[in-house]
Amino acid sequence: MAQNGSNSTVKLLGTWSSPFALRGRVALHLKSVEYEYIEEADVLNSKSDLLLKSNPIHKKIPVLIHGDVSICESLNIVQYVDESWPSKPSILPSDPKDRATARFWAHFVDGKCFESIDAAAGAKDKAGRMAAGGSLMECLAALEEGFQKSSKASDFFGGQNIGYVDIACGAILGPLFVIEAFSAHEAVKPYMPTVAEFVEFAKQKFNV
Amino acid sequence: MAQNGSNSTVKLLGTWSSPFALRGRVALHLKSVEYEYIEEADVLNSKSDLLLKSNPIHKKIPVLIHGDVSICESLNIVQYVDESWPSKPSILPSDPKDRATARFWAHFVDGKCFESIDAAAGAKDKAGRMAAGGSLMECLAALEEGFQKSSKASDFFGGQNIGYVDIACGAILGPLFVIEAFSAHEAVKPYMPTVAEFVEFAKQKFNV
Repeated sequence: MAQNGSNSTVKLLGTWSSPFALRGRVALHLKSVEYEYIEEADVLNSKSDLLLKSNPIHKKIPVLIHGDVSICESLNIVQYVDESWPSKPSILPSDPKDRATARFWAHFVDGKCFESIDAAAGAKDKAGRMAAGGSLMECLAALEEGFQKSSKASDFFGGQNIGYVDIACGAILGPLFVIEAFSAHEAVKPYMPTVAEFVEFAKQKFNV
Repeated sequence: MAQNGSNSTVKLLGTWSSPFALRGRVALHLKSVEYEYIEEADVLNSKSDLLLKSNPIHKKIPVLIHGDVSICESLNIVQYVDESWPSKPSILPSDPKDRATARFWAHFVDGKCFESIDAAAGAKDKAGRMAAGGSLMECLAALEEGFQKSSKASDFFGGQNIGYVDIACGAILGPLFVIEAFSAHEAVKPYMPTVAEFVEFAKQKFNV
């Protein structure tokens, strides 16, 4: 196990189809933290007692359980992992300006990008889907521009190494610039569901 | 000026009625950072060239302009100020678990709490307002419980000193537990608009 101030056990409660749970797993893998992964078996239809107890406010996975403390919200988990296991590799950059840039784009992914994705998924007709699709394309263009400014001609957002923004967006945005390098990374590959698995899950979720 | 790695000038672009701009001002005040406050004159009807240039993605205040770098999003600004001027007082706690707790509740304020406030403001009828009001009361109850667990019988979230969650929620949630101590704090008082000023602003904003 990576050097760690405490000997508390680490558990991650997630579900295989969740890009948010994937963020936590990638962060723990990057830091070489040994942890128990607990699959929330039927996240669409029921919630386990462990989930309800460890995230009483949102009742959502992922939850990182470290000793007797529960950390909720995927980006919060990633920052917590980075701060609790400060050994290399760092997930957030060290310079405050670079950290602010990384947080800005991660927040952008969870805000505007997801709003567009949700709007597309929930659209009642073709016009609605087209509008949401256009909005998502604008988000991706903005993100790509941010990537071009920050990447310094590297594979990952902000430089040579996989980091906070890659973890925030690489897990979810299939058609995106980072996807090839991100998906091939050894901290990501074991946890990335296949397209066929996603299709089956989406059919069940949206009653198709 | 507080000790600072750079001699770059600091400017904050905001508007008097914005609780988000207030967050930035409180953080800068706490760190004794000298800065120029630039009022975005007519935020409801037009946006200045400086705003469009410094926040091209969201086109929203507040923006912290530090030398040639622009930092957008109010909670991002608060964290940036804390990290760029690491002198006391600290805004975020030092322990990773406490930091995660603070980030969780700040995110909760900007998510669920604001969703309820927006839903109440945008409700078309009494039933809609009642539902949104009920949702907001649930949020406040959750926040209060979080406060009770974290405050250790102190005035502020997490302890004796004003911090990240206080700045996130103290600025906006009038009826809340923290408001008295928060509003009376010398870093807050100069920037808190009066009720009469808010009423006049709301009349213009919602065409009442």
